[in-house]
Amino acid sequence: MSVAVIGLGRAGLPLAGVIAESGTYVFGIDIDTEKCDMINSGENPYPDEPDLDQIIEAYGGDVLYATPSCVPDCGVYVVIVPVGLTPDNKPDFKYLEKACRSVGRVLKEDDLVIVETTVPVGTTETLVRGWLEDVSGLRLGDFYLAHSPERIMAGMAVTRLKTFPKIVGGVDSASGLKAHSFYSGFLPDVRLAPDSRTAEFTKIAEGTYRDVNIALANELYVAAATYNIDYHEVRRLANHAFCHLHLAGIGVGGHCVPVYPHFLISDNSIARPELVEHSRVLNDGMIDYWVTRIMFEIDYSPEVKVCIHEIGYRPDTAILTNSRPVVLYHALKGAGVDVYVHDDLFTPEEAESLGLRWIEIEDADFVFNPFTLVMDHA
Amino acid sequence: MSVAVIGLGRAGLPLAGVIAESGTYVFGIDIDTEKCDMINSGENPYPDEPDLDQIIEAYGGDVLYATPSCVPDCGVYVVIVPVGLTPDNKPDFKYLEKACRSVGRVLKEDDLVIVETTVPVGTTETLVRGWLEDVSGLRLGDFYLAHSPERIMAGMAVTRLKTFPKIVGGVDSASGLKAHSFYSGFLPDVRLAPDSRTAEFTKIAEGTYRDVNIALANELYVAAATYNIDYHEVRRLANHAFCHLHLAGIGVGGHCVPVYPHFLISDNSIARPELVEHSRVLNDGMIDYWVTRIMFEIDYSPEVKVCIHEIGYRPDTAILTNSRPVVLYHALKGAGVDVYVHDDLFTPEEAESLGLRWIEIEDADFVFNPFTLVMDHA
Repeated sequence: MSVAVIGLGRAGLPLAGVIAESGTYVFGIDIDTEKCDMINSGENPYPDEPDLDQIIEAYGGDVLYATPSCVPDCGVYVVIVPVGLTPDNKPDFKYLEKACRSVGRVLKEDDLVIVETTVPVGTTETLVRGWLEDVSGLRLGDFYLAHSPERIMAGMAVTRLKTFPKIVGGVDSASGLKAHSFYSGFLPDVRLAPDSRTAEFTKIAEGTYRDVNIALANELYVAAATYNIDYHEVRRLANHAFCHLHLAGIGVGGHCVPVYPHFLISDNSIARPELVEHSRVLNDGMIDYWVTRIMFEIDYSPEVKVCIHEIGYRPDTAILTNSRPVVLYHALKGAGVDVYVHDDLFTPEEAESLGLRWIEIEDADFVFNPFTLVMDHA
Repeated sequence: MSVAVIGLGRAGLPLAGVIAESGTYVFGIDIDTEKCDMINSGENPYPDEPDLDQIIEAYGGDVLYATPSCVPDCGVYVVIVPVGLTPDNKPDFKYLEKACRSVGRVLKEDDLVIVETTVPVGTTETLVRGWLEDVSGLRLGDFYLAHSPERIMAGMAVTRLKTFPKIVGGVDSASGLKAHSFYSGFLPDVRLAPDSRTAEFTKIAEGTYRDVNIALANELYVAAATYNIDYHEVRRLANHAFCHLHLAGIGVGGHCVPVYPHFLISDNSIARPELVEHSRVLNDGMIDYWVTRIMFEIDYSPEVKVCIHEIGYRPDTAILTNSRPVVLYHALKGAGVDVYVHDDLFTPEEAESLGLRWIEIEDADFVFNPFTLVMDHA
């Protein structure tokens, strides 16, 4: 048996690599032919995932073969392409539908399809099932279908995949058991959820936990600042086995946490999740707070050269997906602040090409780190 | 040197006991003379605090002497009396003021006063300082004043006190250091906060973390129920080192968690903490959800004998402070449900004296556990 992994992004490629490492032949499917060529020549397209280098070098082009179109006769098809948001914050299924239909075209009896993409509750058993049945002419029961949410973290993808419990839920019990058996072949801790909906909900709940707790941290940070109390000190003192106050910041970036709460918020089949919704608004609103705060700190002067130091979506990363520092840059600029960026993971040219003005730290009058929230006057 | 502990409640008595155990003479001050007599005859007034039995037996009436009025010449005065809420959810300082004024009457130069009561931010350096100065005629600097929030949990008071980090913050640095040195004499892990305000805020933040996370659990529970998903299963699958989904329930009871968020909500000196406020409303509103849910489960029949099984503020406790099961009982009764209670920690007579109708489990048609949320039809 071989396995096809559809989507060789930051979650899909590590998964394909770990399966290959276990000795199973993997076809990695990605429309980006340049990326496929890199992988097949043993080169890791995500050099900030250090553990991935040796895996791609060892297996790329051999046990792990990347190709742009879906491959028949694989037995197992794992779909792991992004479901992001439309401009009005509804789930955007276009990549998932395309990937599922491409699987449907090669699907045959007894094949197993697993959705690893984080999706709204019910997506696997309704939309995905429908796309697969529609194209393949098969019916559920002829094939198996399950959901198993990826839980990786960019920069630690391989470690997370190998150490975190893997949750698996089938759209029917035979599918759940089959998917459980598949993952148990190469991962140490596979946990069977009652069904695919529970597996879907679990991943959304996990992301929502982070978003709400970051919102709480932000609300407490603002209150503490008004009291002239250092929130970081509060957090250090408060946290223990039963208390997990999160870091405050300028909002939440990345592919995951700011996206998944909208899968609950936009679902009209459930009561409006007001706490989740309010947390999302609060986190996004931190940009306004920090524009006001920084303008106050620089005495509302358009002469002060303000540098945002670090522009990735989280500390020490060059990934810019939903980067809040970039949003802050544009908000400060819009407010008339003489704003620049600096980041050791970028060149001045790269920053400029992103529409961000570059400055050397020593040339700035005021340096703000959007993660530590430290403000340094020159 | 001896120590006075003002307030021998569920937090104060264990503290007094642990100090006595360390070999320091402790005067325990409590207006309840009956309780004082019990303690002095070696009897633990809180038998559900098992570790406390042997401490009171060993030291009560001797190294730990309980008395109804404040004692001079103690050197250290620890105030640990309740600050609850007025009917409009403002902090109710009446016991704290009374206790502080009684300390003020015996206060002399170089004495240390410590507030362990959880209080709104700034209380120690403003109200408490004012009461002490007013009555004693001394000025801060003549005496020392610090805040060190109790972090015990009813039923585990002694263990928590001995193992949890003890946070200490002075209203000035000399007070902080003096209080740190005092606690270091009998507790293993004492942590100095920058000031009393930070110590006060830390305790409120800790309680607020729990309230908000229980609100999130409740919101996710309701969504999961609509999806026909078992939230407990979700929680089991989701939780790991970076995810701490809390238990859902019918709201939050007890002396602490439902109270402390109001110390932020009612403070007009800070921006309205909407997330904290919404969480409080959401948790209180779970009673409505469960009335509706239970009525649905019993098919809206006034004939079905409904039993609420367990009535304490949390599982396995006879403490009724802010008990949500009791609130649920009255709400169901108001909705016309034939409702009863059962709890192994109470007798039928005790329940009846609380205005709660008693039933044996086997005589009920429908049994609801307000903590596990399990509903059993006979």
